[in-house]
Amino acid sequence: MAERPRLGLCDVREAERRLRERLHRTPLLTCATLDCLARRRLLFKCELFQKTGSFKIRGALNAVRSLVEGSERAGGELPRAVVTHSSGNHGQALACAAQAEGIPAYIVVPRTAPHCKQDAIRSYGATLVPCEPSDESRAETAARVVRETGGVMVHPNQEPAVIAGQGTIVLEVLEQAPEVNAVVVPVGGGGMVAGIAIAIKALRPDVKVFAAEPCNADDCYQSKLRGELTSSPHPRETIADAVRTNIGPNTWPIIRDLVDDVLTVSEEEIKRATRLVWERMKLLIEPTAGVGVAAVLSERFQAFPRDLERICIVLCGGNVDLSSLTWLTERPGTAE
Amino acid sequence: MAERPRLGLCDVREAERRLRERLHRTPLLTCATLDCLARRRLLFKCELFQKTGSFKIRGALNAVRSLVEGSERAGGELPRAVVTHSSGNHGQALACAAQAEGIPAYIVVPRTAPHCKQDAIRSYGATLVPCEPSDESRAETAARVVRETGGVMVHPNQEPAVIAGQGTIVLEVLEQAPEVNAVVVPVGGGGMVAGIAIAIKALRPDVKVFAAEPCNADDCYQSKLRGELTSSPHPRETIADAVRTNIGPNTWPIIRDLVDDVLTVSEEEIKRATRLVWERMKLLIEPTAGVGVAAVLSERFQAFPRDLERICIVLCGGNVDLSSLTWLTERPGTAE
Ligand SMILES: Cc1ncc(COP(=O)(O)O)c(C=O)c1O
Ligand SMILES: Cc1ncc(COP(=O)(O)O)c(C=O)c1O
Repeated sequence: MAERPRLGLCDVREAERRLRERLHRTPLLTCATLDCLARRRLLFKCELFQKTGSFKIRGALNAVRSLVEGSERAGGELPRAVVTHSSGNHGQALACAAQAEGIPAYIVVPRTAPHCKQDAIRSYGATLVPCEPSDESRAETAARVVRETGGVMVHPNQEPAVIAGQGTIVLEVLEQAPEVNAVVVPVGGGGMVAGIAIAIKALRPDVKVFAAEPCNADDCYQSKLRGELTSSPHPRETIADAVRTNIGPNTWPIIRDLVDDVLTVSEEEIKRATRLVWERMKLLIEPTAGVGVAAVLSERFQAFPRDLERICIVLCGGNVDLSSLTWLTERPGTAE
Repeated sequence: MAERPRLGLCDVREAERRLRERLHRTPLLTCATLDCLARRRLLFKCELFQKTGSFKIRGALNAVRSLVEGSERAGGELPRAVVTHSSGNHGQALACAAQAEGIPAYIVVPRTAPHCKQDAIRSYGATLVPCEPSDESRAETAARVVRETGGVMVHPNQEPAVIAGQGTIVLEVLEQAPEVNAVVVPVGGGGMVAGIAIAIKALRPDVKVFAAEPCNADDCYQSKLRGELTSSPHPRETIADAVRTNIGPNTWPIIRDLVDDVLTVSEEEIKRATRLVWERMKLLIEPTAGVGVAAVLSERFQAFPRDLERICIVLCGGNVDLSSLTWLTERPGTAE
């Protein structure tokens, strides 16, 4: 049986100390219309307002600051560089964190990644390294860049310092709304839900932790079902592009032991929920954040006991490519 | 010379008392990227989060509550009905206010108004009365409905109780950010900027009040220029649909005497500013709210003295028709 990485509440607390004053304490908003639809009290943790437009900066900055503090303690030089492969929010976040600390960042990006994402990474001063759009090419290219630059690889969701950083989201939530009964967290590689579960189950084991996932990328659901790390049988095609990734060896044991349940939602449900948040809350979330909202509006959730009354949903990001909004103008019957 | 309606700070304070507990105290958000672009500290008053999706509920509810309090004082019955002509935010707001007070609302709406707007009004339980899409037909139809229902007409921007209600925005701003040096307010009929100017100039005459207007609907600018109520020579075609209206006999003298300056912006500037707020702040403002942002980013504003340092922009609404976002995918060079 896979062992849980040694990661505990104290790591999340350390991360909180490192990130304080450096990042935003994002607001917790409410919406009467969505409360009515969900028939519960919803508390929306607005990580779309976080620096770089997603929670990912928490983990990235905690990892970079840990490296910097480590080399300070050793009396040595700053890390030579940080490296990762991600054209998405982690790429931006690591670039931003590295820039803040004066460390070069190399971000491996598939040639096919949208220009706006590449531009965002470049705007934080990072070096883009193109690769082919395959998992192998990404990993190989990143490994080569690490060798060539003497840099440190910062994995987007399996790196323990990243997991601990993401956990700080829920320390804020517990202060902002101690009355919360459950937290709903979209899951990709599982860094966010693992960090959150570690902190919550140490502080408030009564608070439930739900992972939310598209049916089309349901590796977390399948893994929980079988009790072992399993990949999704589905084609991994989802509008929630930030959670196409699979959970991995570090996040799986934490999820297995500490996450109460996994909720899956269809593409239609994700679109409808995203659109609802846009229209009713005026918040420009990315569809990945809609996954959590869709989970709470789903029939399955409606059937949960009523004492699960106050539900925090992490609105994890707002990096939408505005020129790709064609799906909005197609209005399927169910979306009305 | 047109006389100013008898409206003062005490009316705005009364409105504040009436609206307290009934409406949201909207947050004041900031954005480092936009601060950089404007080279000032910007404070965004988030009226897009207000009930009904715009500040309009402040004026509408103040008007309705005033009627109710009036009839309570007189020991009489509730008003028979309230009536207005507006397919936009005021129509929704009056319908919502009337529903909250248990009074029937009749909203005169041009046959050509988008279905989503008509649906929103209907969802607050109001009766829609169709008219032809001309100013005359609107006014006539509204007058007829008033006669037939024995209801009270609540004008969207010339009604004094509406103007006083809109002024409450800035009482909140002065509490949230007493350090503010100026407030920038989109102007249509002028109810919002008039109410805000009355409150600010009574409490803090040192704080500047700027009206912001599309070049294509610049009647407020033209009026200030000539010193008399003047209509715009332009075709009134603007993406900022909520400010196509002209200022009127009640708002003009207040604007003439208390508004420091009027800033006009082009359609391109409005689109670019709206898009910036979407992309950088993740706030789904309607283009009318982008008018204020565009004004602060304009060359003219950049040339203003540096001691105008902390600028509040009212993000007045977020009622965007999501199925009409085609302009987003056309990206003119200047919008990048
Ligand atoms: C907006 C957003 N939400 C959720 C996730 C999933 O996070 P994790 O991979 O830690 O599960 C990501 C990951 O990139 C993301 O960018
Ligand atoms: C979103 C929004 N902003 C600004 C205005 C202009 O307000 P006023 O007509 O009071 O000047 C309106 C009016 O409908 C509006 O709906």
